[in-house]
Amino acid sequence: MADIARLAGVSTATVSRALNHSPLVNEETRNRILELAASLKYSINIGAQNLRLRQNRTIGVVIPFDRKSHQHLTDPFLLTMLGSLADALTEQGFDMLFSRIATDELGTALAAPFDSGRVIGVIVVGQWGRHQELNELAARKVPIAVWGAQLPQQLYCCVGSDNVSGGRLATEHLLAQGRRRIAFLGDLDLPEPAQRYRGYRAALERHGIDADPQLQVSCPFLPSGGRDAVTTLLGRGVPFDAVFACSDLLAMTAIDSLRAHGRRVPEDVAVVGYDDIEQSSYFHPRLTTVRQPIGAAAQALVAKLLALIDGAPAPSVELPTELVVRASAGEAS
Amino acid sequence: MADIARLAGVSTATVSRALNHSPLVNEETRNRILELAASLKYSINIGAQNLRLRQNRTIGVVIPFDRKSHQHLTDPFLLTMLGSLADALTEQGFDMLFSRIATDELGTALAAPFDSGRVIGVIVVGQWGRHQELNELAARKVPIAVWGAQLPQQLYCCVGSDNVSGGRLATEHLLAQGRRRIAFLGDLDLPEPAQRYRGYRAALERHGIDADPQLQVSCPFLPSGGRDAVTTLLGRGVPFDAVFACSDLLAMTAIDSLRAHGRRVPEDVAVVGYDDIEQSSYFHPRLTTVRQPIGAAAQALVAKLLALIDGAPAPSVELPTELVVRASAGEAS
Repeated sequence: MADIARLAGVSTATVSRALNHSPLVNEETRNRILELAASLKYSINIGAQNLRLRQNRTIGVVIPFDRKSHQHLTDPFLLTMLGSLADALTEQGFDMLFSRIATDELGTALAAPFDSGRVIGVIVVGQWGRHQELNELAARKVPIAVWGAQLPQQLYCCVGSDNVSGGRLATEHLLAQGRRRIAFLGDLDLPEPAQRYRGYRAALERHGIDADPQLQVSCPFLPSGGRDAVTTLLGRGVPFDAVFACSDLLAMTAIDSLRAHGRRVPEDVAVVGYDDIEQSSYFHPRLTTVRQPIGAAAQALVAKLLALIDGAPAPSVELPTELVVRASAGEAS
Repeated sequence: MADIARLAGVSTATVSRALNHSPLVNEETRNRILELAASLKYSINIGAQNLRLRQNRTIGVVIPFDRKSHQHLTDPFLLTMLGSLADALTEQGFDMLFSRIATDELGTALAAPFDSGRVIGVIVVGQWGRHQELNELAARKVPIAVWGAQLPQQLYCCVGSDNVSGGRLATEHLLAQGRRRIAFLGDLDLPEPAQRYRGYRAALERHGIDADPQLQVSCPFLPSGGRDAVTTLLGRGVPFDAVFACSDLLAMTAIDSLRAHGRRVPEDVAVVGYDDIEQSSYFHPRLTTVRQPIGAAAQALVAKLLALIDGAPAPSVELPTELVVRASAGEAS
C-alpha cells in the first residue's frame, strides 16, 4: 500500500480509502489508485523483499541445445529429468518457466529471466562446456543450480551423480563376468563421460588390464550415437565382448545395432548402460545399467536453488550411483 | 507513457521529461515516475493492446494429472509432446510456462496464469474428461488449444490425430496377416481410446468378425498397464493371437510381459502400438505402430493458439495417422 501511495503521489490513508471505495476520495483519484493497484499486482513481486516473501513462485528451467546439431528435445534422459523437475516444482507449489537456449548464448541469456524478475532462480540441466559462464553467473549472485559434474574451481552449485564410481561399478561388473574386451561409448570432451571413463580405467587397472584406445568410441547422446559406435567398432576390426555405454539411449541403440549385425546380447556382447530410465526395465534384453537417481536429483536441484534464493549456503552434492543388474549383462555365472 | 502519466496523475509531457531526466521535473516527481515505469515494465504487458503487440511472449503449457493416481510425468508420449512443444515454441521465440494441474482443478486453475497476464494463451495436453470446463474457458475467450479428440459440441480448438482411422489401420493390418483373435488394450472411458476402439470394431465388422468383449482390456497409460492387461487376458483364458495397444508404452510393456509368460512376439502374438515414439524404432522386436505426428502436432497447437490470440479463427484439426510396419507385426506373408 505504501508503494501505491508513493507512486500515485498520495497518502497511504487515501489509498486505503480508495481501495475501500470511500466517498472521501474523488472519482478520478480512486480510479487512478485502483488501476495502479491492479497494474502493480505483478510488479510488486519484483525485488529482494518480495523474493523473501516468495510472492513470485516461478523457477526457470533451461535445457540448452547445441546450435550446430540443432538437436530436438527427444533424449529420454533429458525428458525424464524435465518431467521430474516439473513434478518436484509442482509438489512445492512452484511454476516452471521452461526455455531452451543455444549453448553459445548461455552466458547472456541464462540470467535474463532472473534479471527481469520473471523467475526467482534458474535450474540448468547440463554444463554444456560453459563452466566459465556458469561460474560468472554464480559470482554475480544469480541463483542457479546446475545438473552436471563437479569440476575444479566451481563457484556454482552443482548436483550430479558420482560418475567416477559409476564407471567403476559398470566395468567391475563386466570384469567379474569374465569380460576382458570392454568397449567404452561416450564423448570424453564432456565432463560426465570423462569421469565415467576414469572409473572405467581404474577398474581395468585393478585387474592389470591396459585400456585399449581402439575400444573407446566418442559418440554424442543421440539415437544415432549407439548405432554409429557399433559400426565404428566393427569397422576397426577389434574384438570386443562387452560394451559400457554412457547412457541408456546409447546402450539400447547399440544393442539394436549389434542385433542387426548378428551379435547376441548378452551371449556375444554384454551391455551395460547408464541412467536407469524407465524404459530400461522393459527393453529386451532388460538393461543392466548404472542408476542415476533422477527423481532425487530433481528434488535436490529444487532444494539447492531454494536455499540459494533464501541466501543460505548450497554446497554442491554428488548423489550415489548404484548398479542395477538385468539380463543385458547378467550375474556372473 | 500515457499509462504512466494517468497512474502518476501527471501529464505525458511530464513523464517524457522525467524519463529524459529533464531538470524541469522536480526530483520527487521524477523518482516517482521512474519507479513507476520500472514497476510497470511487466504489468504493461497486460491487456489486449499488449497481447497484439506480443510484448509478452510466454505461452502456458499444462499437462494435467489425476489426483487419485498421483501419476508422475514419465509417460514417454507425454514427455515427447512436451519436448516437441518446447522446441516449437523456442523456434517461434516464445517461452513456456509449464505447470501440472490436478484434473479436478482444471476448470479454475487453467485460466489463472492467463487471467493474471502471465501468459497470453494456454496449450493443454489431453482433455482428461474435462470437456465441459474446456468449453467454458473457450466460451469466455480464454485462448486455449487442446491436444485430444474431436467431440460433439466442442467450442475449444482441438488438435488431434484421426483416432478412428488409426484404430482401423492397426486392425486391418493384423487381419491381413491372418490374425483373428485381436485383443484391444485401452481405457474406453477416455475419448481417444474409445475412438480407436470404434475403428477396431469397424475393421472387424468388415471381415464379418464380432468383437469379443473378453478381448477388450481397460488399462491406464502406465507401464503397469500393459503388464496387467496381459495378466488379465491370460487369466480370462481366452485365446488371442494379436494385441492392439492404445500407446507404444502399453505395447512395449505388454511385449515384455508376453515374453515373461513364454509367448513369442510376433510368432505367437503380433503386437501393434500407437504413437510411434522414438523408442519404438529400437525396441526389440521393433514396434509396428500407428504413427501420430507429434512434432507436427506441437507446431499445429502453437499455430492455432497464436491465431486465437490474434483473434483469428482457429478451427479444430485432425492430423492424419499412418501405419509404420516393423517386426512386432510384420508384413503379411
